[in-house]
Amino acid sequence: MLRFGTCYHPEQWTAEQAADHIKLMVKARMNVVRMGEACWCKFEPEQGRFRFEWLDPIIATLHKEGISTVLCTPTAIAPMWVYNRHPGVVRVDARGHKAPTTAAHACCVNAPEFQMLTDAVAQSLARHYAKIDGVIAWQIDNALGSGGSARCYCEHCEKAFRQWVLAKYQSTDKLNEAWLSASGGMEVRQWNEVTLPRSERGRTNAGQWIDFARFCSDSLIGHYKRQADILKANCPSHEITCNAVPRAGHLRLHKLSDHVTVAGRVSTPDRTDGLIASYGHDIARSMTGAFWVMEQSCSARQDRPGVVSETLDPAELRRWCWQAAAAGASGVYIYPFRAPLGGDDNLRPGVLDWDGKPRRRYKEVLRTGDEFAKVGRELEGVAIEAKVALMRSFDSRWSSESQPGLPGFHHDDHCFDLYRAVKRKGHVCDTIDPDAEIKKYSVVIAPCLTVVDDALVARLEKYVKEGGTLILTPQSGSRETTNAMTTIPRPGLFAALAGATIEEIIVAPGDAPQTLNFARGALIAQTCKVRSWFEVIEPIGAEPIAEYLDGRLKGKPAIVRRGVGNGQVIYIGVYLPRETLELFIGEHLPDFPMKEIPDGVEVVQHKGEKGRIVFVLNHTGERQHLKLPGTFPDLITGETVGPSVTISANGILVLKA
Amino acid sequence: MLRFGTCYHPEQWTAEQAADHIKLMVKARMNVVRMGEACWCKFEPEQGRFRFEWLDPIIATLHKEGISTVLCTPTAIAPMWVYNRHPGVVRVDARGHKAPTTAAHACCVNAPEFQMLTDAVAQSLARHYAKIDGVIAWQIDNALGSGGSARCYCEHCEKAFRQWVLAKYQSTDKLNEAWLSASGGMEVRQWNEVTLPRSERGRTNAGQWIDFARFCSDSLIGHYKRQADILKANCPSHEITCNAVPRAGHLRLHKLSDHVTVAGRVSTPDRTDGLIASYGHDIARSMTGAFWVMEQSCSARQDRPGVVSETLDPAELRRWCWQAAAAGASGVYIYPFRAPLGGDDNLRPGVLDWDGKPRRRYKEVLRTGDEFAKVGRELEGVAIEAKVALMRSFDSRWSSESQPGLPGFHHDDHCFDLYRAVKRKGHVCDTIDPDAEIKKYSVVIAPCLTVVDDALVARLEKYVKEGGTLILTPQSGSRETTNAMTTIPRPGLFAALAGATIEEIIVAPGDAPQTLNFARGALIAQTCKVRSWFEVIEPIGAEPIAEYLDGRLKGKPAIVRRGVGNGQVIYIGVYLPRETLELFIGEHLPDFPMKEIPDGVEVVQHKGEKGRIVFVLNHTGERQHLKLPGTFPDLITGETVGPSVTISANGILVLKA
Amino acid sequence: MLRFGTCYHPEQWTAEQAADHIKLMVKARMNVVRMGEACWCKFEPEQGRFRFEWLDPIIATLHKEGISTVLCTPTAIAPMWVYNRHPGVVRVDARGHKAPTTAAHACCVNAPEFQMLTDAVAQSLARHYAKIDGVIAWQIDNALGSGGSARCYCEHCEKAFRQWVLAKYQSTDKLNEAWLSASGGMEVRQWNEVTLPRSERGRTNAGQWIDFARFCSDSLIGHYKRQADILKANCPSHEITCNAVPRAGHLRLHKLSDHVTVAGRVSTPDRTDGLIASYGHDIARSMTGAFWVMEQSCSARQDRPGVVSETLDPAELRRWCWQAAAAGASGVYIYPFRAPLGGDDNLRPGVLDWDGKPRRRYKEVLRTGDEFAKVGRELEGVAIEAKVALMRSFDSRWSSESQPGLPGFHHDDHCFDLYRAVKRKGHVCDTIDPDAEIKKYSVVIAPCLTVVDDALVARLEKYVKEGGTLILTPQSGSRETTNAMTTIPRPGLFAALAGATIEEIIVAPGDAPQTLNFARGALIAQTCKVRSWFEVIEPIGAEPIAEYLDGRLKGKPAIVRRGVGNGQVIYIGVYLPRETLELFIGEHLPDFPMKEIPDGVEVVQHKGEKGRIVFVLNHTGERQHLKLPGTFPDLITGETVGPSVTISANGILVLKA
Repeated sequence: MLRFGTCYHPEQWTAEQAADHIKLMVKARMNVVRMGEACWCKFEPEQGRFRFEWLDPIIATLHKEGISTVLCTPTAIAPMWVYNRHPGVVRVDARGHKAPTTAAHACCVNAPEFQMLTDAVAQSLARHYAKIDGVIAWQIDNALGSGGSARCYCEHCEKAFRQWVLAKYQSTDKLNEAWLSASGGMEVRQWNEVTLPRSERGRTNAGQWIDFARFCSDSLIGHYKRQADILKANCPSHEITCNAVPRAGHLRLHKLSDHVTVAGRVSTPDRTDGLIASYGHDIARSMTGAFWVMEQSCSARQDRPGVVSETLDPAELRRWCWQAAAAGASGVYIYPFRAPLGGDDNLRPGVLDWDGKPRRRYKEVLRTGDEFAKVGRELEGVAIEAKVALMRSFDSRWSSESQPGLPGFHHDDHCFDLYRAVKRKGHVCDTIDPDAEIKKYSVVIAPCLTVVDDALVARLEKYVKEGGTLILTPQSGSRETTNAMTTIPRPGLFAALAGATIEEIIVAPGDAPQTLNFARGALIAQTCKVRSWFEVIEPIGAEPIAEYLDGRLKGKPAIVRRGVGNGQVIYIGVYLPRETLELFIGEHLPDFPMKEIPDGVEVVQHKGEKGRIVFVLNHTGERQHLKLPGTFPDLITGETVGPSVTISANGILVLKA
Repeated sequence: MLRFGTCYHPEQWTAEQAADHIKLMVKARMNVVRMGEACWCKFEPEQGRFRFEWLDPIIATLHKEGISTVLCTPTAIAPMWVYNRHPGVVRVDARGHKAPTTAAHACCVNAPEFQMLTDAVAQSLARHYAKIDGVIAWQIDNALGSGGSARCYCEHCEKAFRQWVLAKYQSTDKLNEAWLSASGGMEVRQWNEVTLPRSERGRTNAGQWIDFARFCSDSLIGHYKRQADILKANCPSHEITCNAVPRAGHLRLHKLSDHVTVAGRVSTPDRTDGLIASYGHDIARSMTGAFWVMEQSCSARQDRPGVVSETLDPAELRRWCWQAAAAGASGVYIYPFRAPLGGDDNLRPGVLDWDGKPRRRYKEVLRTGDEFAKVGRELEGVAIEAKVALMRSFDSRWSSESQPGLPGFHHDDHCFDLYRAVKRKGHVCDTIDPDAEIKKYSVVIAPCLTVVDDALVARLEKYVKEGGTLILTPQSGSRETTNAMTTIPRPGLFAALAGATIEEIIVAPGDAPQTLNFARGALIAQTCKVRSWFEVIEPIGAEPIAEYLDGRLKGKPAIVRRGVGNGQVIYIGVYLPRETLELFIGEHLPDFPMKEIPDGVEVVQHKGEKGRIVFVLNHTGERQHLKLPGTFPDLITGETVGPSVTISANGILVLKA
Repeated sequence: MLRFGTCYHPEQWTAEQAADHIKLMVKARMNVVRMGEACWCKFEPEQGRFRFEWLDPIIATLHKEGISTVLCTPTAIAPMWVYNRHPGVVRVDARGHKAPTTAAHACCVNAPEFQMLTDAVAQSLARHYAKIDGVIAWQIDNALGSGGSARCYCEHCEKAFRQWVLAKYQSTDKLNEAWLSASGGMEVRQWNEVTLPRSERGRTNAGQWIDFARFCSDSLIGHYKRQADILKANCPSHEITCNAVPRAGHLRLHKLSDHVTVAGRVSTPDRTDGLIASYGHDIARSMTGAFWVMEQSCSARQDRPGVVSETLDPAELRRWCWQAAAAGASGVYIYPFRAPLGGDDNLRPGVLDWDGKPRRRYKEVLRTGDEFAKVGRELEGVAIEAKVALMRSFDSRWSSESQPGLPGFHHDDHCFDLYRAVKRKGHVCDTIDPDAEIKKYSVVIAPCLTVVDDALVARLEKYVKEGGTLILTPQSGSRETTNAMTTIPRPGLFAALAGATIEEIIVAPGDAPQTLNFARGALIAQTCKVRSWFEVIEPIGAEPIAEYLDGRLKGKPAIVRRGVGNGQVIYIGVYLPRETLELFIGEHLPDFPMKEIPDGVEVVQHKGEKGRIVFVLNHTGERQHLKLPGTFPDLITGETVGPSVTISANGILVLKA
């Protein structure tokens, strides 16, 4: 079932206003709302005194109108009495500043008192709502780890971190060995000498850093799991979701999946590239298959606080909703239903404006609701099958977070660039954890996969031998799992598999590019400029497919390929510009029926028992023309389109193929 | 009487040096000095031991020479013993950092110990100087609220804020209602759960924020009033002034006026636009009518610390002095008399350089003193009568401080742009509080007047009906007095009066401008580009006077006008570029006899019983030519000038008309 | 003896790895290593328990192979147990933030516990290594004062500062007088009212600031001296060195010289200008004559943390080594020998890469080692004799640090610009303290020598009368030794000697340049644009050699020259652009045999009993052509070169002349 709904905040409105709002929801054919994420102070106005009567009538009314409820455990925003009675729960940053208690995520998930309080509120909600009609699912907490909140440096965390490393290493000698503590002069002899890495990023012991990043992710997952366990025990038939920030990066989302029954994500339009939202969707989808967009924002991303978010163009909100469905979302919740009058989110337009009048945006939601209702059933039973996977390694990302290697490098932006290259060819792209099953993929791209161990490399080797294509990029294999630099010539454990070692890494100023020549052995015949980072490859069995053209590097390989068993490994030793990357990756992907997809247009193909469904989405404000490989019925309009087709600005096609 | 003098620091000089300085003051026909702003440690070297003998001979000598004294209460800079004995008085910022005690304004005005200490020193000074000849006035404290010092986040302030909100709201329910606490999940049940808004600006609960801003302003006014009451009780015939920073913005200056007998301001030349100083003057003038420039800096504004301030050109210091007089100043105190040798202000040139030699600047001061003495008497009895007023709402400004709505928007810069448009046409412009009497004005401009209530709108409606012109700009009427977003379609309470509602607000990237067309109904026939913020107006009785020309907004009104009774309301839904704003506002102002005032030239007209006096000031370093509406005697040179006249760089004319 | 070696970290490697490393060192003809700078936790794993057995075998092996050892006292990086047991030793910044204990220099040198701990470890090491064969020298601590670590604002420092000012001033009255405390309202009556200057730089009392800067430098020198005394007492025949950061600026290096037997410095290639390294070398050389480059980095400067340092081009590392020798270094230690696998320095390539394989860089080191061995003996007995000295006044620099006078001015960059002008003409340039002996120089350049007293000016006057040329630049003589502004017309105490006073200082926006005309009396006939700071000079005996050409300054002198006795004083009242400065300074230097040295080429001449040796270094990546004043044998190749000669990229010549 394709759920369509909204994030609703009955705590902000009178009963009369809510009645009007619900009528508008019904009219828009909404079938679900999410509520309660900021309502701890409503649910538990004083410690231990719980109240539900403010919300229950709303849930009942919604239910009567055919609208189900997803409830949030409200632990992202603690009531003011928490800080007043339990001042020790406040999160602390690396410099010792306390988090402002008037913002979200101000509490430390390792503070025992906070754990006690969140257990109590989750318990109480779970018991009460276990049997209330209409409630179908729980979102635990909200936007976990957003705004840097996954990293806390308080005394509770220092103690918990000591426990964590003690459990992991058992002895200080092993800890010193793993962290290479001797290198920085910070060997420890007693557990209470272990501290949190408060130094500036990049100047921190690499081993200590990666363990801290892992510890923080584990802590947050522990916080989530405490509540998930309570909810599962009390409400066994309810779904459990989250509101993940897909690219936030401090939380190993794949590990969170164990405790989630359906993944959820927040989606705020970033208009610089429509595929950014798809990337987030695919990250959520890769957690649990189907997923929900818990917050599909009504306006575009606006980083500066205190300003009204950017307005979406006509038809754009509808397109963002359909884009979610195309990516496999089984639920889309528009955020917020009505623009809040106060609080700290009051400059975010909603489906309704502050005055509650339904205007252009509401009309668009009406249309979307109709279309979802009409087409939604057609989507049942279909599935998304990706032939290409992007391996997103959190260990590598955390290693890179502190030590990116080259100035301005951002691990996840690099991942996105490779994701984008896949998507531009029409392929769906899974985003997977290094320990995921990969047999089913034709191509696995492992961007900047620095932190590796023998087992992972062995699995990748097996994958390649059995016919897979593995694509590696600079810095791959340079770290051990302790985040230590490898002592094996780079690409370290990948050297044998890639059939090459790195003779030299040249780090150069950004204004001194090298020219790359794809003439020998490459499928694309061209040159391009590369910058900042040049790995000089010594092939040992691999064949060069791109070489440097300039100066002393002339003729040295920069990209090599090695056939292994039935498959191949490609090692890219430079950072290719986006256009070249798109061409180059494109050459190594499986065939896709639609060629020449215009920039700004996204194609997504679902596979079902009754045939395929193909979404074509125009992410731009201009009309786009494209060529389909035949004629197809459009499930929305019912008309047959193709092979030449023009899509209006922000337009979409849902083709039955 | 036009007072002309200087800020003098006898604590920095020997008796011999002071004797030389006073001779030079006398020669420059100075009749007043201000002293003591940094002398708490001289007046009270140990707690409770007061000393005046270091200053009294100077006051006596000055008095003998015909120079009166304005004394400062020295509470802006606490002696080092204060911090040593009363460490709890130190101001704290939002992140918990203590203010450095070696800087000014390091103490919290809500700290009970600090209040006790300031009472004591004010009391002691007031008693001693009540009957000392020569002392005519008090400046209380110094540069109140400058450098962000109006905002303190210490525990004293938290307690005082709780008292303040308790007094205002009486119950936590009413507080929660006003702050819409439910929106952000921060409802309180007990007063000690109320905290200060320590979150990042723009991410703070809007209601809490505006009350905090009001509380801080009230606290500072309370600090001022404590001293004013002591001084008035002891020295009933002395004037009471302040040294306001007109644009600082954390202190509601109009509310301070109640305790001031003559407003004072600090004026540091900002050479980017000569009218910036006039804006500050008009703000001070609007407090109490006549006003004093307590510190007319000898050098130009230099924001970076540790650098020598920019040098003024020949004749420029004189021009700044005359500009003050033109704006209605009845006293100008040049700062400092001699450049200090040490302290933290030692890179500010004075009338004299560090070596005490009278050079170019002193000669200019000599000339200015002569001219002031000569022309000053002519200015007695004249008055400034403005037909135009700019409504500067502190509530709206504080709302905007945290939530400007669009990136880069600064409420007071917007006010200045409108002020400037008025001044460019020759008109004097009052700057008034929303509760000021407005009947006397032909035009009232209320820039970004977001925070309004029924009473204010009713008064403005009455004003318009009786023939006034009211000009409103974007975001007007969007907030309630609690800083909540209005639920009435924008412009909220102004909608009926303006005869229009806002169908949609479009917030767009700065690089996607819209073209505005003034063709239909507008007095200026032209187009212009507008950016970032487009209100789409639905006229309900109003007539469009400018429309959008591009894309889907084509033909939609952006500016409308509605005749109401004998007056009219103009609502501007975009941010006009400066040039267009000048033209547009110009069309709606009363007639002014002098047309075509060149850019960089300011004209100010005083009205007296014996006729008008017209100042013409050249703010530029180039000669300027202009046309007068006749021939007039120049009171400075005695010559008759006009109708064509050339003014030298930084030159001035004081015409009798 | 020309020592050639490396910084070695046996704590990071196994015995087998170390054995391999030592073989490679021997092969590269290394004769010295530096060890132990980060090994406190190895030497003293628990408080009071000392261990040497982990290091002694390495020292013995090295010694057997003919490689001597320089040991570091390891006090730059405290073991974790220090922070755990003695939390009060942590350094604190001006805002109250504690230094992160996982970084170097986290301890306050004024903390009594830290002094006790460093005494103990130094004592223990000194006793143990006094008689161990192979150990020849001590480096005390490491990179003293780097990263701002010389400035601590903890309570220990506040107390120590009070002692320091008490000792200096004896009475609070004298303190108030020196600091001109009255100017900022901060007079003190009791010693415990004295605080550290925690205000923003530039807004601090100038007197308090300079004394704090002196106190911090003294504190660090005291820390160094404690250890030097212990080492000298126990190891009388060992050399004592340091690893100075020549331009760091918080430590008065000349005062450190008293406790050093051979100066040492860290040298990280800054490729923007090859002469920057020479400047640092000459600063180290000026401390003790011969000096060691304790850390000659294998890669170029990379300010951002977490990124791999920039790669050096082929032949470039060799050139940096030879450049050190050319500057008079008697020892060059390449850093590090092998890239560390962990810690916080793991992105710095070494002679060997992380995998320990000898590659391109090792081959270059081999070649350099051979050349050093071959040519080193020729350099014995030669000396560097400078005819030109640059007076680097730390007092002036500290004054300028807080109050640079004009925006963007950096005292030491200004010094370097003048140094560079000297070097471009082929001259060696000493960098001297104001109290150094200057008789031997033909020219003394004293850049921005603001802080002066009678004695210094008298010495400079004597120097000039006896035939010297003294060159002064803007702001000279503007401060007393208390950092107070002088009351003598500028250039203050220099006025009489320079035969000029400054009529006016004009500080102008950077976009309003003045044109300078060198026509009258100048040796270079040209004009140039100058910016931001214009001193208008009134000659009183001096002759103008450059005048302003524009506006009201037209014809006013900007640079003057006065013959005094057998010498002359040149006063430059503007900041000349680099090219003009080079020409202008060049005209006043003694003759040098080689003319027209291309930009990017450095020439250094040594003088010995057997003749001169001339180094020619190509700092660029391009071939350079130049003309020698004859033909000379190149000591490296044995070939005769000249008069026309071409030097390869990063090439060098060592000519016997």
